[in-house]
Amino acid sequence: MLSAPATPDQDGSVPGAISGEQDRFRSELTRSIDAFLAEQRDVLADISAESLPLISSIATLTSGGKRMRALLCYWGWRAAGGSPTASAPVTAGTALEFFQAAALIHDDIIDRSDTRRGRPSVHRQFTARHTDAGWHLDPERFGVAAAILAGDLCLAFSEELFTASCSGTTGTAARTIFNRMRTEVMAGQYLDLLEEAVGPDQTPEVAADRALNILRFKSAKYSMERPLMLGGALAGADDRLLSAYSDFALPLGEAFQLRDDVLGVFGDPEVTGKPAGDDLREGKRTFLVARALGSGRDGVRARINAMLGDTSLDDAAVGMLRGLIIDTGALAHTEQLIAVKSEAAFAALDRLEVDAVSRRALSLLAEAAVTRTA
Amino acid sequence: MLSAPATPDQDGSVPGAISGEQDRFRSELTRSIDAFLAEQRDVLADISAESLPLISSIATLTSGGKRMRALLCYWGWRAAGGSPTASAPVTAGTALEFFQAAALIHDDIIDRSDTRRGRPSVHRQFTARHTDAGWHLDPERFGVAAAILAGDLCLAFSEELFTASCSGTTGTAARTIFNRMRTEVMAGQYLDLLEEAVGPDQTPEVAADRALNILRFKSAKYSMERPLMLGGALAGADDRLLSAYSDFALPLGEAFQLRDDVLGVFGDPEVTGKPAGDDLREGKRTFLVARALGSGRDGVRARINAMLGDTSLDDAAVGMLRGLIIDTGALAHTEQLIAVKSEAAFAALDRLEVDAVSRRALSLLAEAAVTRTA
Repeated sequence: MLSAPATPDQDGSVPGAISGEQDRFRSELTRSIDAFLAEQRDVLADISAESLPLISSIATLTSGGKRMRALLCYWGWRAAGGSPTASAPVTAGTALEFFQAAALIHDDIIDRSDTRRGRPSVHRQFTARHTDAGWHLDPERFGVAAAILAGDLCLAFSEELFTASCSGTTGTAARTIFNRMRTEVMAGQYLDLLEEAVGPDQTPEVAADRALNILRFKSAKYSMERPLMLGGALAGADDRLLSAYSDFALPLGEAFQLRDDVLGVFGDPEVTGKPAGDDLREGKRTFLVARALGSGRDGVRARINAMLGDTSLDDAAVGMLRGLIIDTGALAHTEQLIAVKSEAAFAALDRLEVDAVSRRALSLLAEAAVTRTA
Repeated sequence: MLSAPATPDQDGSVPGAISGEQDRFRSELTRSIDAFLAEQRDVLADISAESLPLISSIATLTSGGKRMRALLCYWGWRAAGGSPTASAPVTAGTALEFFQAAALIHDDIIDRSDTRRGRPSVHRQFTARHTDAGWHLDPERFGVAAAILAGDLCLAFSEELFTASCSGTTGTAARTIFNRMRTEVMAGQYLDLLEEAVGPDQTPEVAADRALNILRFKSAKYSMERPLMLGGALAGADDRLLSAYSDFALPLGEAFQLRDDVLGVFGDPEVTGKPAGDDLREGKRTFLVARALGSGRDGVRARINAMLGDTSLDDAAVGMLRGLIIDTGALAHTEQLIAVKSEAAFAALDRLEVDAVSRRALSLLAEAAVTRTA
């Protein structure tokens, strides 16, 4: 059985036991997602078979992804003494996957993204349904409207699942974390919108601070800190342990997102699967960009601002922008910040009073998060 | 105290006691809404003061309205033996008001409505904020994106409140009703979108059936049946009583929405506050319209289809369309259906085994719902 702490091997790793345990959790998660979707398909079929595309659109998002949040929830549960065979972390992990799907559906409307994980985004799926059927009125408007509703439904599903995960446990602390997580993500996304809109008029120092704050709420807490704490709280972790989880997972989440920002500008298209410098064409006001604007002389700043958000940037222009960002020292500074945050996370992990398997699993997840290339 | 059943007066009414009780509930509801908003304002202020417009936009919707759903929840609770001074129906009513606000925010994006209750709709509020500040990029796009997030946040708030209302009670049955209600509304709204898109190609008989189904899920259950059942379930009502609630409130909700459809075409602008024939310009495919299309000869049908959804219809054209709808017999048929549904509702109310005050209160709410002129 996997419930007994595994013994670390010579280099401190227990890869076999951990990957076996994670594989089992992942397959239970997939089963749980599928079972919930099947249940909801029946509910919608009772209303009208014509409403079923709402479910299939959600299923296109819950069937993929790295399950990172669900895994953090699992290890948060496990490290707090929860049984590896319990259903609560599976149900809570399922809730997190549906929450993430809901966020992606609405995010893709907001960002006007046509694709998601190599498939059409949900609003594009509904637009295509309209076009293919030759219906009346505007296909795009139909697509966006249907995707708003699909996202709402998915958000409701996420909460329905979360409540189920709390039943029979001390759910109050977990509920508070779940509520806070939702509010943080939505407020963080709003601040991100605002940043794009307010644009280059603010001082670069202010912009860098703001970019860090957005990154913290929109991504770091939501992607790392809250899922880990949620698992812990479901297993009855006390405030001291939850706070130690936060000390580890918040800087880790920040490093993770800063790495994402770097990849969005400097990532290899062959590895990321996205066009080179995609974030530059989208005009994302990340910490990296804010820092470049802050560190450059006036002439450099004006040149960056002039190119940023220009959807027609060719590879040469992307190369030039990259060069400017390097020249300002912003890339080096961001890499340094990633290193500082990562070190803080790993130091906190060392101090964490948990079993060896959980510690090693969290360490593997952390390494993957900050050293990834895609 | 109001907890003792009031004695009906000569004609069976207890208007003083009922309106006193409702007034007290309404003011507790307002207090609860305000307290929750103040609490969330603090949560958002901790993230960034710049995210506070999300809260103020929600507040523009929760500060008004008839509180019909919350009142039905209250009487559902009260008629099932719940104490009039308990907090559960206040909190559940608050959850319903936030759910309604969330639905309206997203609905107004979908329908591209510029106003709501005489004020700018939430996406228009954010668009105006962008324009007034002279920010970058497209103000309308910013407005829609921010309103998607405000609606999501409001949906999360509604659930947070609903969970609070269940604490300390037998919340499982109520939770199931709440979950079902959300799914029904979202699926119903999707079917409504689909109806507009599929448009006049389907046979009119099919269209009338579909219009009734949409009306049931999008409106009747959500506006009447589910809130009443929710209150009952929170007070521990058994399945028999909940089913009796449904027998009363579902046909009532149908009559209520059919009345709404009639007012959308024939309502007096002086009373409704909306331009005459607004639903015709919006091209809403209501039961009334579907029935007109189904009852008219081919020539009439083509004329209705040609004018429906034309935003530039002048008063003369609206008058002509109204005439056509009357001539097909669709208005008379819809009025007859309202009468049939109302009778079914009142007959079920007579059979309902509840105290005299609750019965009379429900009767007053029902009368207001089906005989209203605005």
